[in-house]
Amino acid sequence: MTVQGDVRALLFDVQGTATDFRSTVIESAERIIGDRGVDWGPFVDRWRAAYFAALTGLVAHGPESAWTSVHSVYRSALDELLAEDGLGSLGEPEREELTLSWQRLRPWPDTVPGLTRLRSRYTLATLSNADVGAVIGIAKSGGLPWDAVFAAEMFGTFKPEPAVYLGAARYLGFEPAQIMMVACHKYDIDAAAELGFRTAFVARPLEFGPGATVDVAYEDRYDVNAADFLDLADRLGC
Amino acid sequence: MTVQGDVRALLFDVQGTATDFRSTVIESAERIIGDRGVDWGPFVDRWRAAYFAALTGLVAHGPESAWTSVHSVYRSALDELLAEDGLGSLGEPEREELTLSWQRLRPWPDTVPGLTRLRSRYTLATLSNADVGAVIGIAKSGGLPWDAVFAAEMFGTFKPEPAVYLGAARYLGFEPAQIMMVACHKYDIDAAAELGFRTAFVARPLEFGPGATVDVAYEDRYDVNAADFLDLADRLGC
Repeated sequence: MTVQGDVRALLFDVQGTATDFRSTVIESAERIIGDRGVDWGPFVDRWRAAYFAALTGLVAHGPESAWTSVHSVYRSALDELLAEDGLGSLGEPEREELTLSWQRLRPWPDTVPGLTRLRSRYTLATLSNADVGAVIGIAKSGGLPWDAVFAAEMFGTFKPEPAVYLGAARYLGFEPAQIMMVACHKYDIDAAAELGFRTAFVARPLEFGPGATVDVAYEDRYDVNAADFLDLADRLGC
Repeated sequence: MTVQGDVRALLFDVQGTATDFRSTVIESAERIIGDRGVDWGPFVDRWRAAYFAALTGLVAHGPESAWTSVHSVYRSALDELLAEDGLGSLGEPEREELTLSWQRLRPWPDTVPGLTRLRSRYTLATLSNADVGAVIGIAKSGGLPWDAVFAAEMFGTFKPEPAVYLGAARYLGFEPAQIMMVACHKYDIDAAAELGFRTAFVARPLEFGPGATVDVAYEDRYDVNAADFLDLADRLGC
């Protein structure tokens, strides 16, 4: 890896790349709501898809109008899904508590030990579309050792808009070529690469649960392809 | 303390409250430049005063125009002081390295153990007028365990402008009454109190060196008055 000598900081996607949102939210739903005849795995998949569609729609309306609380996006999507599934009678406290489970996402088993090794050499920051408070909550509940929390909320729009990546570079005080964007979603690292950032793809085959089709193919266009955060630490010489 | 039950997060001033800038910068000057007949203690005092005057001037021009890199503020002030003291021949690399010492400020002895105790109960974030990158550098070199780094740079102006405190509250997702501003500078916590934040005054009698006159008087108007971060942890039941 000739790239690693120039890189000073790593930026990490959080939902999916650093944390296992699907199993966390399924577990929360089972605890908070119980069975109720709902298969919570596919429910969470639909919930995440609705969130993703809402964000894409917000970004499409342009950077000026593109930021809204991600908590409110998840909550609106939940209300619609519950109505569709005949659970419209579910109370306000349960809806709110279930939505807050996106702020307590469990890290993948390799996340904390991998970050701990990487942190000895690099500045580690999040670059998440989740709200700042949600990213802090996830870090605090899961023990993720970030040096800084950056989130789309700070830049008034969402990834993959350039303003998000460039804003993080400005805060770090580094050039894009000194920063590596780390994600399991190719659209995210491809957007960063367009702006001159270094890239690391981390495969997360279980992001959408066992048996789901996920694009985990390594690509030559990325500076690093890694199986998980420990493999990423190996490949970056940490 | 009846206040502590409502407080969810603590915001900390960094330069002076969490770190001993004076001894750190004096030591850097002695290492980088040497003696040269300069008494570096008073030199650093003048440097800090020039920085403070520059920021006050920027804030006075209104929030729209009030943000500039603090690194460039320190650097301009340094160039003027060196010229005044007959050190105008000092090279560019030494000037830059000396200015960067403000990004590696040493924590006070109680800072890291105090924060470590406080962190078990509260979300801990910086709220500094220093640049984001500088606050990250200070945290990384000194091992300060923040949950998040907030800095004036994120809000386009400097403390004590309300936008800085209110912006941090928005990012945390808490009301001002759920957040305690911690500082050794009364203007800083008084500005936060005006907006409904809780307040903690921490005495730093050595901020400007041994023998300097510093206002370390406890005040009834603050929710907490503390001798250092360990005393703050005691008083907040951590």
